[in-house]
Amino acid sequence: MASIARSSFRLRSVTRVPTARTITTTPHLRAAAKPFFADEPAGPKLATTIPGPKNKAATAELDKVFDVRSLNMLTDYSKSVGNYIADLDGNVLLDVYAQIASIPVGYNNPHLTKVAQSPEMTTALINRPALGNFPSADWANILNTGILKVAPKGLDQVFTAMAGSDANETAYKAAFMYYRQLQRGGPEKEFTEEELQTTMTNQAPGSPQLSIMSFKSAFHGRLFGSLSTTRSKPIHKLDIPAFDWPQAPFPTLKYPLEEHAQENAQEEQRCLQEAERLIKEWHNPVAAVIVEPIQSEGGDNHASPAFFRGLREITKRNNVLFIVDEVQTGVGATGKFWAHDHWNLETPPDMVTFSKKAQTAGYYYGNPALRPNKPYRQFNTWMGDPARALIFRGIIEEIERLNLVEHTAQTGEYLYSGLQRLAEKYPEHLQNLRGKGQGTFIAWDTPKRDEFLGKAKSVGVNIGGSGVNAIRLRPMLIFQQHHADILLESIEKIIKQL
Amino acid sequence: MASIARSSFRLRSVTRVPTARTITTTPHLRAAAKPFFADEPAGPKLATTIPGPKNKAATAELDKVFDVRSLNMLTDYSKSVGNYIADLDGNVLLDVYAQIASIPVGYNNPHLTKVAQSPEMTTALINRPALGNFPSADWANILNTGILKVAPKGLDQVFTAMAGSDANETAYKAAFMYYRQLQRGGPEKEFTEEELQTTMTNQAPGSPQLSIMSFKSAFHGRLFGSLSTTRSKPIHKLDIPAFDWPQAPFPTLKYPLEEHAQENAQEEQRCLQEAERLIKEWHNPVAAVIVEPIQSEGGDNHASPAFFRGLREITKRNNVLFIVDEVQTGVGATGKFWAHDHWNLETPPDMVTFSKKAQTAGYYYGNPALRPNKPYRQFNTWMGDPARALIFRGIIEEIERLNLVEHTAQTGEYLYSGLQRLAEKYPEHLQNLRGKGQGTFIAWDTPKRDEFLGKAKSVGVNIGGSGVNAIRLRPMLIFQQHHADILLESIEKIIKQL
Repeated sequence: MASIARSSFRLRSVTRVPTARTITTTPHLRAAAKPFFADEPAGPKLATTIPGPKNKAATAELDKVFDVRSLNMLTDYSKSVGNYIADLDGNVLLDVYAQIASIPVGYNNPHLTKVAQSPEMTTALINRPALGNFPSADWANILNTGILKVAPKGLDQVFTAMAGSDANETAYKAAFMYYRQLQRGGPEKEFTEEELQTTMTNQAPGSPQLSIMSFKSAFHGRLFGSLSTTRSKPIHKLDIPAFDWPQAPFPTLKYPLEEHAQENAQEEQRCLQEAERLIKEWHNPVAAVIVEPIQSEGGDNHASPAFFRGLREITKRNNVLFIVDEVQTGVGATGKFWAHDHWNLETPPDMVTFSKKAQTAGYYYGNPALRPNKPYRQFNTWMGDPARALIFRGIIEEIERLNLVEHTAQTGEYLYSGLQRLAEKYPEHLQNLRGKGQGTFIAWDTPKRDEFLGKAKSVGVNIGGSGVNAIRLRPMLIFQQHHADILLESIEKIIKQL
Repeated sequence: MASIARSSFRLRSVTRVPTARTITTTPHLRAAAKPFFADEPAGPKLATTIPGPKNKAATAELDKVFDVRSLNMLTDYSKSVGNYIADLDGNVLLDVYAQIASIPVGYNNPHLTKVAQSPEMTTALINRPALGNFPSADWANILNTGILKVAPKGLDQVFTAMAGSDANETAYKAAFMYYRQLQRGGPEKEFTEEELQTTMTNQAPGSPQLSIMSFKSAFHGRLFGSLSTTRSKPIHKLDIPAFDWPQAPFPTLKYPLEEHAQENAQEEQRCLQEAERLIKEWHNPVAAVIVEPIQSEGGDNHASPAFFRGLREITKRNNVLFIVDEVQTGVGATGKFWAHDHWNLETPPDMVTFSKKAQTAGYYYGNPALRPNKPYRQFNTWMGDPARALIFRGIIEEIERLNLVEHTAQTGEYLYSGLQRLAEKYPEHLQNLRGKGQGTFIAWDTPKRDEFLGKAKSVGVNIGGSGVNAIRLRPMLIFQQHHADILLESIEKIIKQL
């Protein structure tokens, strides 16, 4: 499939006959639609109120053995296709939430189907290696043609992991080991007897009281180390012991940006100054700073490239590592493969973590000194999953074949313009529209956020929120202009009901 | 394949013509061999010294992008079959390490191949759900016919995870939430304003200074929370900040057990008393105790069922939760499906964690109060991987079809007897033989441990160590008497070279 030229998308005109329940959208808006998925429906379809009877019954079954209180919708993946997600009752929704921003190239993507049915996949599934000890002979090739093919500029190494939380935590571990190595005076310095003994009782100096600095409203995961850097909502953190680590303020920008340029620049300066002060003064020395290019769970909070360049400067000046958490922003959604590609950094980040749309996880790095000085310091049984690494490779192939990063940049512009028009028309319902020039990674605030989300399915879209007041759009990379038209019309329908 | 009766294993007599390099074993010992795998080789085969030239070259390639210092052997999984692992140079070894105890039913198991190539697997691979929000409609069925079919007695719920570390950490989180809920007076009690505020700065009371108690030499994982309970070796812990959590002594038993019954019982009593004292007195209150049925990474340290029953009593008496970490011991290797089945507990553990041979991970629980009182408290994007849950289901089917738990109990007895004979013959090289009645989960100490392991491949076996002096056997569940014969002869060959 990699040999198929970009121009030969399997096109099919939208000939699906709308049923009474198919949601119609203004026809002229969709004339130019050339769907990436030949069998994608022409639009959402509502068969019942949601949840319908079959979904309710199946949910009750699942509830017996699995916590369903966070359940959004039991899904019939066999009937989901491209941008459309289906339930058991025959409802089919345009999905701009995409498994919490983790489906890049559509449900039942034909190329991924081939990858899933390949002999390589079979062996990866049934002969799961302990990658640190017994990698398959083609592991280097899988990395080089997949995960590492899209490595951020300047970073040519990877430590593979399972999901975002452990990707971040292993990056933190690398940072702590590196920091202590610098303190000791180099990789060849041996641990002291005191260190060897104290670490067995979790005490310094063997288990030092160092820290990772993160930002207010940040989200970096929910395991114990990552949760100590997560500052999104109390419900994510309550009752769980945490490390005494610092949080810097993240800029609160005013929108539209062009009307608040000076104010926003001052706000970013204030945050940078406070970040540097914390690095210098925090009682548990800071080994690394971690930041999301766009704070996602925390409410889709943006900052300017200048802010991130400033942060990079501060970390260099203070000899702490700079970790960019691209778990949600990475893999094309912002119109660049990595969101930090927007920043024009002079030196690359020390580590970049990834997961979600990659369908696997890990951290990239470039500096060889970030490989711990001895084996088995950064190690676990599986260290990721080659099956999921193969899926990521298939995703990369599909992104290249369809030029999906550039495509997403363009679709994002189109979608943003449409939202701007809606924001002018309904200023009370679309506040602080943000994400211009960031692909389809777009959000806005609305005072009736939960009500808005509650009505979305009834007009045929699956959509998510972030933070307290934000609607976040997280369409797949195969989201096209004709989907944007449906989405814009749906948003207007919801607003009219509020 | 599930319809094939147990008696109809695909048998094939061992007719493979030995080449000059095939390692020969005493023929009479293997007369009764009825291999589970028709195409399994008759014995190990050495084509080169190990590592051979192809493996060396491929390792150098991998080293450019991936840390290979912990590499044991680059593996050709396409040529590995059943109990035998192959490298690139044509060497084929009897594998009693099995990807750090994580391969249960053999390389290239035909039934798992079918599972991997099923339509269900394809959809699980390409439409990866956010399980907490959008589980597939058949997720309840996948759980009930797989993970939950083998749930430990008394535990009918599961929270799914990715690997052992996060399985343990999510269990810890459940324990902390439960502990605080008891303190508050029930699930309906609301968080205080102070809790909501302090948790955002990682301070008590919102982020309370509670603890999980583990045991000396324990291994529970390498992320920040799990690593704080891991006490195996300094190299696992050095330079990583840790929580100030307590460790109780784990019994140091003397072997042979029957000659030291009274002493060992006293040692276990001493450890139990100290465990209870720590629970009562530790400055960071203990929410849960976690223990491995057999301390694996820490050196294959055993304790008696009476010890574990005593520990269960102590946890109940002191209102702390009892978590059994079955990551390495679970899924049949000890001759019971779960190692804690050997204990005859009066009340089940509060949580049991699993991974490795399950090829997926999570924790089982039974008490409904261990579901946190609000949604999104125990949550993450993927919450496991249905693709790996399908593999576990296939493994369970294969275990049932071949009656592999009972089989492993029997093979273990046979193997243990053989090792006992070797221990009598070479007492200096096989000390503290342990694991009697524990299936093939057998280990011994030897003063020249690393030398022993270094020679193993040259006689055709892949074998691992644990702790400082131990050789640990971790064969697959399809390990048979004829494999045991080869292993016993190989061990003797190594000993003769020491």
